[in-house]
Amino acid sequence: MESYEQRLKNIVNHLQPTNNGGIEMVDCSADLEVNTISSNSSIPKWNKQELSQYLESAPEHIRVAKKNLLELLKDPIFAPKYNMNVQEWRELTLQRAIKVIKAGAISLAEFNRDPMKYLVSLEMLNLCDPSLSVKLGVHFSLFGNAVLNLGTEKHHLKYIKDIDSWKLPGCFGMTELGHGSNVQGVETTATYDKNTEEFIINTPSDSAQKFWIGNAALHGQACSVFAQLYIDNVHYGVHVFVVPIRNPDGTIAQNVRIMDNGHKLGLQGVDNGRIWFDNKRIPRDNLLNKFGDVQKDGTYVSSIQSKGKRFGAMVAPLVGGRVLISTSALNVSKMALMIATRYAYSRRQFGSKGNEIRIIEYLTHQRRLFPMIASSVAFTFSVEKLKRLYCEPNKNSQNVKDVHIWSSGLKAVVSWMKTNILQLCRECCGGQGFSSFNQIALFKSDLEIDMTYEGDNHVLLQQVSRNLLVELQKGRYTLTSANHDSNIHSYDFQIQSLKWRESNLVQTLSSRIMAQLDQGRSLEQGWNTCLDVVTQLGKAFVDRITLEEFQAGIKNAPSSTKPVLELCRNLFFSWKVNEDLGYFLCHDGIATQTAQKVQDSINILCAEMLPIGLDLVNSFNVPEQFIHAPIAQSDYIQEFRYGLNRNY
Amino acid sequence: MESYEQRLKNIVNHLQPTNNGGIEMVDCSADLEVNTISSNSSIPKWNKQELSQYLESAPEHIRVAKKNLLELLKDPIFAPKYNMNVQEWRELTLQRAIKVIKAGAISLAEFNRDPMKYLVSLEMLNLCDPSLSVKLGVHFSLFGNAVLNLGTEKHHLKYIKDIDSWKLPGCFGMTELGHGSNVQGVETTATYDKNTEEFIINTPSDSAQKFWIGNAALHGQACSVFAQLYIDNVHYGVHVFVVPIRNPDGTIAQNVRIMDNGHKLGLQGVDNGRIWFDNKRIPRDNLLNKFGDVQKDGTYVSSIQSKGKRFGAMVAPLVGGRVLISTSALNVSKMALMIATRYAYSRRQFGSKGNEIRIIEYLTHQRRLFPMIASSVAFTFSVEKLKRLYCEPNKNSQNVKDVHIWSSGLKAVVSWMKTNILQLCRECCGGQGFSSFNQIALFKSDLEIDMTYEGDNHVLLQQVSRNLLVELQKGRYTLTSANHDSNIHSYDFQIQSLKWRESNLVQTLSSRIMAQLDQGRSLEQGWNTCLDVVTQLGKAFVDRITLEEFQAGIKNAPSSTKPVLELCRNLFFSWKVNEDLGYFLCHDGIATQTAQKVQDSINILCAEMLPIGLDLVNSFNVPEQFIHAPIAQSDYIQEFRYGLNRNY
Repeated sequence: MESYEQRLKNIVNHLQPTNNGGIEMVDCSADLEVNTISSNSSIPKWNKQELSQYLESAPEHIRVAKKNLLELLKDPIFAPKYNMNVQEWRELTLQRAIKVIKAGAISLAEFNRDPMKYLVSLEMLNLCDPSLSVKLGVHFSLFGNAVLNLGTEKHHLKYIKDIDSWKLPGCFGMTELGHGSNVQGVETTATYDKNTEEFIINTPSDSAQKFWIGNAALHGQACSVFAQLYIDNVHYGVHVFVVPIRNPDGTIAQNVRIMDNGHKLGLQGVDNGRIWFDNKRIPRDNLLNKFGDVQKDGTYVSSIQSKGKRFGAMVAPLVGGRVLISTSALNVSKMALMIATRYAYSRRQFGSKGNEIRIIEYLTHQRRLFPMIASSVAFTFSVEKLKRLYCEPNKNSQNVKDVHIWSSGLKAVVSWMKTNILQLCRECCGGQGFSSFNQIALFKSDLEIDMTYEGDNHVLLQQVSRNLLVELQKGRYTLTSANHDSNIHSYDFQIQSLKWRESNLVQTLSSRIMAQLDQGRSLEQGWNTCLDVVTQLGKAFVDRITLEEFQAGIKNAPSSTKPVLELCRNLFFSWKVNEDLGYFLCHDGIATQTAQKVQDSINILCAEMLPIGLDLVNSFNVPEQFIHAPIAQSDYIQEFRYGLNRNY
Repeated sequence: MESYEQRLKNIVNHLQPTNNGGIEMVDCSADLEVNTISSNSSIPKWNKQELSQYLESAPEHIRVAKKNLLELLKDPIFAPKYNMNVQEWRELTLQRAIKVIKAGAISLAEFNRDPMKYLVSLEMLNLCDPSLSVKLGVHFSLFGNAVLNLGTEKHHLKYIKDIDSWKLPGCFGMTELGHGSNVQGVETTATYDKNTEEFIINTPSDSAQKFWIGNAALHGQACSVFAQLYIDNVHYGVHVFVVPIRNPDGTIAQNVRIMDNGHKLGLQGVDNGRIWFDNKRIPRDNLLNKFGDVQKDGTYVSSIQSKGKRFGAMVAPLVGGRVLISTSALNVSKMALMIATRYAYSRRQFGSKGNEIRIIEYLTHQRRLFPMIASSVAFTFSVEKLKRLYCEPNKNSQNVKDVHIWSSGLKAVVSWMKTNILQLCRECCGGQGFSSFNQIALFKSDLEIDMTYEGDNHVLLQQVSRNLLVELQKGRYTLTSANHDSNIHSYDFQIQSLKWRESNLVQTLSSRIMAQLDQGRSLEQGWNTCLDVVTQLGKAFVDRITLEEFQAGIKNAPSSTKPVLELCRNLFFSWKVNEDLGYFLCHDGIATQTAQKVQDSINILCAEMLPIGLDLVNSFNVPEQFIHAPIAQSDYIQEFRYGLNRNY
């Protein structure tokens, strides 16, 4: 089969003879004259393969593993299929999950040995089918991870093999109907009975039912249950227990009740369910006891004295989920941009008959797609850095904190960016964006939840800002003043501007809270009145680290790719500042004339990108095999010819 | 059954004894202390029924018709049902449509006699099931409307009865695969054959296939086809023809081929299809000949000389669709806000055990919901005005133009606002927002398309701006200077600010285009380089007319409701200006100190709204019977008790 570029070149040659010997993949010169902004990009050609590999930045052994997984995902069972009811979705997802597991493509052992490889595998599964990656993610990254990192050797010996073979499908029993973000407030109890050496797991009220538990409605047999530990009426805080919820034959275990969460906006293939425990007795050994244990006689022992720190250890497994959401959201953003951009360079509308204008030539289209393409490139570097931080084998406490802060911030900002990008791409594709076959719509539904699960975005940004505030108060935060230069395309100007904004916000936050404390209010009360600044600050931090990582990435990039990466950096910066221009101007973070220059730069940078935008998205590190969308093919009209059925 | 308020009051009393005799529907006083912003709203109580009726503003006979329709919609066939494949969705939607038609609740005759009543009926059907309203809308508002307003008496006699009985289900064959926004570019041809006195309808290429045609995949028997008319090789532009596409027995008509558009993001109940015509012959009488006719001998006659104006007449039926989208989007926005706000006032998270904080008390929650509540109230008045303009029986050319401009602008801005509101509400409800049972998610999917169909929003805003530019150039546009006062809560300040922005933008647009013309470019080329300003200007116009209509509405409002309406106006204004603060500051439309005041006002106005936000959404004019969402009930925990099945 011809490559995408070859086919596109052929059809373009057919539609409109090029006048430069066919060097340009798409020759827009005839149409570009309509756009009075300069059509000649100053950006020289780059090697697409080289840029794609650089954006991926994975070591060789991971590339090999990825290639093998991609081969597996060519099996017909993974072909797109949409027209199903909930039962059919779940069954297909189960069969897909089993196929992946049986092929040994993903496992808890792997997760432990080579987290980067595990992460990349889940990323690929997510591009193939988000229900599949979530179902496997619940089983391995949440349930399995809890066993691995909250349990001890006895649990590893007992469970890991069965987890890796899917003999023991698992659930992660954290969220309750009444408690989502506030995990410390879960109501489920685990009361130790020293006579029988058992824990009694109980759901004291309907608000304590475990809610939204993936794999619970149908397939899960064990559940890592978060519950308040009581021994002799003394409360020891939240601990995690392995509780059987189904028997090996699939029937529901004694003293357990399960209901179905039912139909959802997306992720129909994941069987989310609700669980009640009726004084369900489990052996003492089922406590995952790495950070806190109960001896036979009921004596509580823990290496961590602080209840708060112990709780922190219990929820640490969630960090991996946030890393995965960041990277998956970024991948899906890129894929949607590839689809919408290809369509925008081939779809024509209005203009002279027989020579209608490509829709990418409309400024409204450029201003929607190009800043998002630039942003996707920018976030590639901060997200890759996060992945590396997360996968580092021997983390010190600073590393652990960095991973927490970076994963919280990036998960929030990138998942929102992804939602925005999917929305813009959907609209840029018009009715085609509404068709399931063009993929954007379904990613929109499936990935919608990522802004509120594994930590609500607003709550996560509080983690980021709280940390910055502490740094400031401990004198460890370096304040940056505003830069009143006007060289908006210089990195020094750009980074100083973003650092100034962050500095200014953290100082505002600090002084507003101080004022509240002076009025006799508690820190918590003061904090609540500042949540607008808290959110702004969290986002500002993420923008700043992203620009820094982007610049570091440009420094190390293959030289042919530097000009296009710099163009992306400039557009990313201008777009971000323009979005927040009121703040910059109100607080004298930028001169009015410079602000005007930033605004004006967007159209100019878009014009720079116009001749190369298609090449750029085709340099993205997203495997072509996942792009089924008819509008992303070289000749979308042909994809809709009579008789070509697409009834899946 | 107890009313919602009564049940809420009971449960609130149960949860937490009120200390003021239960006058407040929800007594937040205990919790409000946590929020250090003043918890005492200066807004006095209003009569909810009175506000609700005022927001509805329908005359008595329409209220009666609406009440009857609401009774009909209590039939079990209209009960929510989600877990279906495409085939089941379509069958259910068909049966619902037939039920509505058989009850005489909607008809083309009605549409002709009392468009306001027709409009309100479709609004209610949309709240019940968007697939249902779209399926009926295609049949009546598009196909039927074409017959009514593009056809003449012979067509009315022949078709209207069968349209009203669903004996002749209709499609609207305008969009083609290759041509959406550019209707004048459709490729389908209608060639007159004077020998047989027939038109030959033909699809010359795959890009000319009729695409996204509602009712085409399964049920449509006739289609109003937009095609280029040719007589003796002379081209007469786009005309509309009634073409049979299925026989009465449901088989596909000769020389017609149909395929299915398949699975979509939403509106699964609408059977969108694709149609090809293979030199399909239809009688001469099938031309809808009100604005252009072909005599037996092939002589073309038309009362409208200009091809452009004739085309305008042909696409005039689309205006009604834009009015309906505006009003439906607004209704759905309100419904989503009702659901999310009720949940926000009952859901608790964090804070001291047993007395956790209601999530509405978090500033991040208030800043997402309250400005949108205020905006929904604001747009009620401009959308109601549009409805009245549209339904006016004897319109002069100025009226027709106003309806065109207002419907274009409001359709774009309100559908975007709705998308934003659904997104915010989804996120504010966390995981619950992802459940189909809570309705927000499904409205998100079903109404997603409204930003790009019946006129792409960006294209529609061009209509608005083009008109303003013409007004300016003809000297009919009154320019407004900036107001450098700082009384941000005075209407005079507010309207002058919005008028200034509009003025400034229209002048910028004009001068930028002039500069392009001076450089020898065509008007079209110049226009394309200014599409960023064009979009901004279109939105600025809609904000301005909305503020004006809102103020007129406040003037006429029942006096008890004025304070809360004024609060909404102030918040609407501050929010809108804050969103665009960079523009105001860059162009000296507001003093820096005033800008700061606008920013600060948002938290203050949110604090004002906190004690009354729940009352306010409960005063919205959305029938309670459509709100099934468990989280919108008085005790959402109870709605999820064990054993209460929700398996639809």
